Amino acid sequence: MKFLLLTFVGVVHLLSLSSGKTIYKNDISQRTFQEIKEEIASYGDVAKAIINLAVYGKAQNRSYERLALLVDTVGPRPSGSKSLEKAIQIMYQNLQEDGLENVHLEPVKIPHWERGEESAVMLEPRIHKMAILGLGSSVGTPPEGITAEVLVVTSFEELQRRAPEARGKIVVYNQPYVNYSKTVQYRVQGSVEAAKVGAVASLIRSVASFSIYSPHTGIQEYQDGVPKIPTACITVEDAEMMSRMASRGNRIVIQLKMGAKNYPDADSFNTVAEIIGSKYPEQVVLVSGHLDSWDVGQGAMDDGGGAFISWEALSLIKDLGLRPKRTLRLVLWTAEEQGGIGAFQYYQLHKANISNYSLVMESDLGTFLPSGLQFTGSEKARTIVEEVMSLLQPVNITQVFRAGEGTDINFWIQAGVPGASLLDDLYKYFSFHHSRGDTMTIMDPKQMNVAAAVWAVVSYVIADMEEMLPRS
Amino acid sequence: MKFLLLTFVGVVHLLSLSSGKTIYKNDISQRTFQEIKEEIASYGDVAKAIINLAVYGKAQNRSYERLALLVDTVGPRPSGSKSLEKAIQIMYQNLQEDGLENVHLEPVKIPHWERGEESAVMLEPRIHKMAILGLGSSVGTPPEGITAEVLVVTSFEELQRRAPEARGKIVVYNQPYVNYSKTVQYRVQGSVEAAKVGAVASLIRSVASFSIYSPHTGIQEYQDGVPKIPTACITVEDAEMMSRMASRGNRIVIQLKMGAKNYPDADSFNTVAEIIGSKYPEQVVLVSGHLDSWDVGQGAMDDGGGAFISWEALSLIKDLGLRPKRTLRLVLWTAEEQGGIGAFQYYQLHKANISNYSLVMESDLGTFLPSGLQFTGSEKARTIVEEVMSLLQPVNITQVFRAGEGTDINFWIQAGVPGASLLDDLYKYFSFHHSRGDTMTIMDPKQMNVAAAVWAVVSYVIADMEEMLPRS
Repeated sequence: MKFLLLTFVGVVHLLSLSSGKTIYKNDISQRTFQEIKEEIASYGDVAKAIINLAVYGKAQNRSYERLALLVDTVGPRPSGSKSLEKAIQIMYQNLQEDGLENVHLEPVKIPHWERGEESAVMLEPRIHKMAILGLGSSVGTPPEGITAEVLVVTSFEELQRRAPEARGKIVVYNQPYVNYSKTVQYRVQGSVEAAKVGAVASLIRSVASFSIYSPHTGIQEYQDGVPKIPTACITVEDAEMMSRMASRGNRIVIQLKMGAKNYPDADSFNTVAEIIGSKYPEQVVLVSGHLDSWDVGQGAMDDGGGAFISWEALSLIKDLGLRPKRTLRLVLWTAEEQGGIGAFQYYQLHKANISNYSLVMESDLGTFLPSGLQFTGSEKARTIVEEVMSLLQPVNITQVFRAGEGTDINFWIQAGVPGASLLDDLYKYFSFHHSRGDTMTIMDPKQMNVAAAVWAVVSYVIADMEEMLPRS
Repeated sequence: MKFLLLTFVGVVHLLSLSSGKTIYKNDISQRTFQEIKEEIASYGDVAKAIINLAVYGKAQNRSYERLALLVDTVGPRPSGSKSLEKAIQIMYQNLQEDGLENVHLEPVKIPHWERGEESAVMLEPRIHKMAILGLGSSVGTPPEGITAEVLVVTSFEELQRRAPEARGKIVVYNQPYVNYSKTVQYRVQGSVEAAKVGAVASLIRSVASFSIYSPHTGIQEYQDGVPKIPTACITVEDAEMMSRMASRGNRIVIQLKMGAKNYPDADSFNTVAEIIGSKYPEQVVLVSGHLDSWDVGQGAMDDGGGAFISWEALSLIKDLGLRPKRTLRLVLWTAEEQGGIGAFQYYQLHKANISNYSLVMESDLGTFLPSGLQFTGSEKARTIVEEVMSLLQPVNITQVFRAGEGTDINFWIQAGVPGASLLDDLYKYFSFHHSRGDTMTIMDPKQMNVAAAVWAVVSYVIADMEEMLPRS
C-alpha cells in the first residue's frame, strides 16, 4: 500500500507521509487514503461520460458556439458599459433557459471608466503616429494634449537613478517582458513612479509575450498624495524604437491626447446559477469566470472562454442527469478587470458560509488545450485533487501544478479555502491579452471542449465526494 | 568519381549524368565537373573568412545596426514619398562612405499613391470600429463615405454563385490563408471581381499567416473596362466575425471612408554600387533588395533586411580586401511594392548586356535564419550552386531549393539568367508582412549576420569563378 500511495502522491508528499500508516486517520476523517482513492476511482465511468459528451458527443463545440454568439452580439464588455449590462441580461436568460437552478443576479457597484478618443504622435525626431491604449482608471489630458520631451527608461531602478531628468517629461518605460506577474508592475505602478519624480505623463511598453504592433491595455493604480498623470500603453515596437533613438542621443518629443474619464460607479451584477446539492445543499463547489472584459477586441479569451466553460461544466453535468451531493455553483463575475470588484462583493455577501466551501475554481488564463490544473490548498487536499485529475487520463490532462490563485477566488483562498485554476499556453495567452486581438479567432472549439471536460470532471467529483476537501 | 559526383549533385541529376564521364565536356566548357568542384573547394578559406568576419568578427551586427539607423530615421518608405527619396539619398551617401565603387543613381518614374485618412465602422448588427488598411492604388470613397450592406464570401467561386446578391453591396472576402502566392490573388483581384458583379466596394481579409488584429496592406490592380471601386484589407478577425454573423442571418452594414488618392508619377532612383571585377569587369553578379516599403511599420523586414544584407555582402568582401574576377553589383530597387517598377526600368536599361549576367540574386523573403537558397536555372548551374552552398557548412546552411524567382529579378530569370533568392521562415515573414508590425523588433542581428554571410559567400564565389554559370 505504501508503494501505491507513493505512486499517487508523488515526491512532494514524502515528508508529510513518513510518519503514519493512514494519512488521514485522526486528522481529517477516519477514512484511509486507500478508501478515498477507491471512492475517486469509482467516478471513472462518470468522468468518461462527461468526456464523451463534451469532446465527442452532442455537446461538442457548444461552449464555443455559445461564446461566439454572445461576443459577436455584444462585443467587448468593459466595467460600467451598456454592453456588459446587456451581456449579463443575456446570460441571466441563457442560464434560465438552460434549466439551471437558482439563477439570480447579485448586485455590485462597479467602476465606470471610458477611454474616449486618444492619440499619440511622435513629433521629433520624425513624425510618427503611435498606437496607444489608455490604461484603465487613467485621467485624460487637456483637450490640446500634453506635448513634452521623452525620457526612456528600462526599469524603475533606472528611473530612480535618472530622477532629475524626469521633471516635465513623458516617461517611456521599455521594460523587458519577463513574465506577466513581474512585468505587469510597470503597467500598474508606472504612472505613480513617474509622477513621483515630476513626469507629466507615462507611456508603458505593453506587457505582452509577442507583438504585431499591438498595444495591450489593463488597469493601473494611482496612489494618494501622488499627482495623477495620464498613462497609456504603447507597443513593444515603439518602446524599443524610442529606446534606440534615445541611445543615439535623439531628442524625442511626443504629443499625447487622451479623452479618458472616470464616471460615477455603475450598477452591475454577479451572475449566479446552480445545480443544488442532493445531500449537502449548503456546501458549495464554485466554478467561475468573469463576464466583463477590456473595451477592445471581444473579450473572447479573457475571459469569455473561462466563463463559458464554467457554464458548460454545469450544462454537461445537468445533461447527464447528474446531481452532486454538494451544490455546484456557477458565478460569472463582474468587473474582474478593475481588480475583482464583483468577487470582493461576493465574498462579503457569502463569507459567513465559508466553512461550507469545499473548493473555489476560476478559469481566467485561457481555455486553449489545458496543460493541467493549478491548485492551492493543503498537501492532503492536493493528494485528493491529483487523484481526481487522474480521471482525466482519457484526454491525457492529469497534471496538478502549484499556484491555483486567481483574482476572483483569492479572497477565499487567502481565508483557507482550496482553490484551483485551469492552466494552458501562457505564451499564447499573453500574446493576445487585453489587446484588440482577443477575439473568437484565437478560440478553438476542440480545445474548449477538452477544457470544459476537465472543468466538469473536477468540479463534479469534488462536489459529489463523501467529504469536503481537507484544509490546512 | 561517379560516387562522389552523385554525392554532390543529388538524385535530381541522375538522368542528365547517366550518359557521360565528364558532365560538361563539349557542353559548357572543357572542364570536368571534378575540376569545377575542386575550383569551388579552393574557396573554402575565403568562405570561412567571410563567415568569421560576418558572424564572429568585427562586422557582426553591422547590417542590423545600419538598418536600424536608417529605418528609425526615415520610417516607412512608400513609392513616391519624401521618406523614400530621403532614404535613397542617405544610401547614396552611405555606399560612397563605405568605399564602394561606381556608386550612382539610375532614374525611374514611380507611382505615387497615398492612403490619406481612412476608417470603417460596422453600423449593424452592432457598432464596431474596424481596423483597415486601404490597398495600394485603390481609389478613395466620397468624403461622406460609402455606407452599404455587406455580402460575405469565402472564395471567388462563391462570389460568382451569389453574383445577383452583390449589386450595391460591399463585398467582404473571408478567404482562408493557403499560402501567399495563392491567397494574395484575393488582395490583387478582389476589387475587380467584386466590381464586375456590381459591388460598390470590397474589403479583403488580410493575407497573413498569423494575426493580432493586424491589417496587412499591399498592391491591388484595377482592370480596364471594370469600374474602379475602393478596396481595403480588414483583419482576419473581422473577416471571420462577419462570416459568422452572416451565417446567423445577421444583416451587416458598414460605413467605409477612404481618402486614398493616386498622384502623378514621382521621380525616384535605383541605387547602385559595385566592386568592379578584376578580370571580366563587364560580367556581373547582381545582389539586391528593395529600398521602398509599404507606408506602415518601418519596412525593416520587407525589405530593409534584404537591402542591407546585400549591401553587407559587398562590405564584407571589400573589408577582406577581395576583388572578384567579375563585377559584383549591388542594386537597391525602388518601387518594388508597386510591381517591380524600378526593376523593370533597370532591365530596360541593361538588358543589352544580358549575356554578361552570371547570376541575379534578390533577398525579399526575410533575413531571419536562412533555411537555404532558392535557385532557378539550368540543372548544371544548380549543381554548381549546390557545390558553392557546401562552403556554408560552417554555419550549417547548405540547402538549395527550387523557385529562385523574385519580383525584382524575374525579368532576367525569364530571359534565361540564373536567379537566386534567400529562403527562411515564411510563417514568420507573413505574420508581419505589409503590416504595422514590420519593424526592427522582429529583426535579429545574429540572424542577419548569418544571412549576410550566406549572401556574401554565394555572390563572391560565383563572381570569382573561372566561368559564368551555365544557362539552359
